[in-house]
Amino acid sequence: MEVAETVSSVRGLVEAARRQGKTIGLVPTMGALHIGHVSLIEAAVQQTDFVVVSIFVNPTQFCPGEDLAKYPRPFDADCEICRKAGADVVFAPTADQMYPAENLTWVTVEKLTEPLCGQFRPGHFRGVTTVCAKLFNIVGPDVAFFGQKDAQQAIVIKRMVADLNMPLEIVICPTVREPDGLAVSSRNQYLNPEQRKDATYVYKSLQKCQEMIDAGVTDTQKILTEMRRVLQQVPSIEIEYVSIVDVGTLQDIDKIAGKILAAVAVNIGPARLIDNILVDSNR
Amino acid sequence: MEVAETVSSVRGLVEAARRQGKTIGLVPTMGALHIGHVSLIEAAVQQTDFVVVSIFVNPTQFCPGEDLAKYPRPFDADCEICRKAGADVVFAPTADQMYPAENLTWVTVEKLTEPLCGQFRPGHFRGVTTVCAKLFNIVGPDVAFFGQKDAQQAIVIKRMVADLNMPLEIVICPTVREPDGLAVSSRNQYLNPEQRKDATYVYKSLQKCQEMIDAGVTDTQKILTEMRRVLQQVPSIEIEYVSIVDVGTLQDIDKIAGKILAAVAVNIGPARLIDNILVDSNR
Repeated sequence: MEVAETVSSVRGLVEAARRQGKTIGLVPTMGALHIGHVSLIEAAVQQTDFVVVSIFVNPTQFCPGEDLAKYPRPFDADCEICRKAGADVVFAPTADQMYPAENLTWVTVEKLTEPLCGQFRPGHFRGVTTVCAKLFNIVGPDVAFFGQKDAQQAIVIKRMVADLNMPLEIVICPTVREPDGLAVSSRNQYLNPEQRKDATYVYKSLQKCQEMIDAGVTDTQKILTEMRRVLQQVPSIEIEYVSIVDVGTLQDIDKIAGKILAAVAVNIGPARLIDNILVDSNR
Repeated sequence: MEVAETVSSVRGLVEAARRQGKTIGLVPTMGALHIGHVSLIEAAVQQTDFVVVSIFVNPTQFCPGEDLAKYPRPFDADCEICRKAGADVVFAPTADQMYPAENLTWVTVEKLTEPLCGQFRPGHFRGVTTVCAKLFNIVGPDVAFFGQKDAQQAIVIKRMVADLNMPLEIVICPTVREPDGLAVSSRNQYLNPEQRKDATYVYKSLQKCQEMIDAGVTDTQKILTEMRRVLQQVPSIEIEYVSIVDVGTLQDIDKIAGKILAAVAVNIGPARLIDNILVDSNR
């Protein structure tokens, strides 16, 4: 496995693979890799011939007051995880390499970035779409892999790719969970043991949603009330949002119908945690 | 020469050329081709192996009240011009092909799009950068060719390509002029014979700027006053702006120094005309 730190070096490695007729997979990450990332890398290894994992803590997607400075950066361990998972290249650029001049150019997706996390993280999605556009242009993958855990991000990036005719496919991989249901996240390590236990209630609230839809409840407000009740059992949980939205538009819905996304964001101590489930109410 | 009307058909043609080891050139146009466009196509033929000319009157770069509906669309004549100039493909998509769904994704360049034409055409550059990003992603050229006549557009697109790491080179070709100095433009055909004569004063005002800089004048205000005086000789000319700016930032400058851009925009009857010159005051 190679480690590339510059745009030109990763391009050289990808070009060499292309000349051998290989297809290229990209797994964009901010490092602090966990089994969720491993599942993305393994999917990439399975579906493409040459896998690049980018590790870049992108400053433009952090809002003022967020955890940019303290975001974990265990680079050597990350490389070892990539190697074991079968990656061919780790692309780990510096911020100067990614943003050598003042960045004047932004890729923005309207509407889909406004609800859910968009309400609470101004500029976040603009940072994500811009850095993903850059990574796609640098690496030139046939397929890029993202996790369903960041549901809104996945939907926004798919829309960007479609709207701008970017020549790649986006594959969304299922959320990976701890045995007790907590979605794995680099930010889980901010939790102390007590908070870690409390965090399981995030997924419990989503399971409550699934149960109620399975039981035929269609009144969204009723479901949201019960989901909030689950979370409110735990004093350390500060709810940011609990939402049930149309999976195409991400707009709130009154009645459960078709494919819906139930999404939760909470703060527990120092960690902002998000989770979601997709439910096809027709099945 | 082939005419492709869909994204997939132009991609197929480009892929076949790539497999033969050919480099790809793109000349993005809105049709109504003239000798300025021909010079771009000829540059592309000289510098790349397989030349795509796109012809698309892009609705998102026209502002409300502008000439979208009446913009000339002489498609058959355009194709003949492309063929004679040596193009391999004309890519002429419909608006539905380019914007099949509501477009939610925009590429914007800050700062550089604010002065000059940006002040008078809100949303124009956002439309240009977005459609160029789409065309670059659809065609995948090694080199794309633009004219110096649209100086701000050229600078904005170069910045977009650099900021987003788009894997292509932008080549800017010199402004082509009629024998009397008028920059060739698809919009010149809106002029009646009287207006056509009046239009020569646009370039005369720029020549006045060049002369004054050559004579050692460094006070920008003095030069701008003289440039305006040239234009004000002609009653049909309605000045939009007369500016002397730094070629890197496009910001107004007080003293002539280094490389400057002198740019003029006027309305003459039904036509909005722009022109500019680059002057290296160090030479």
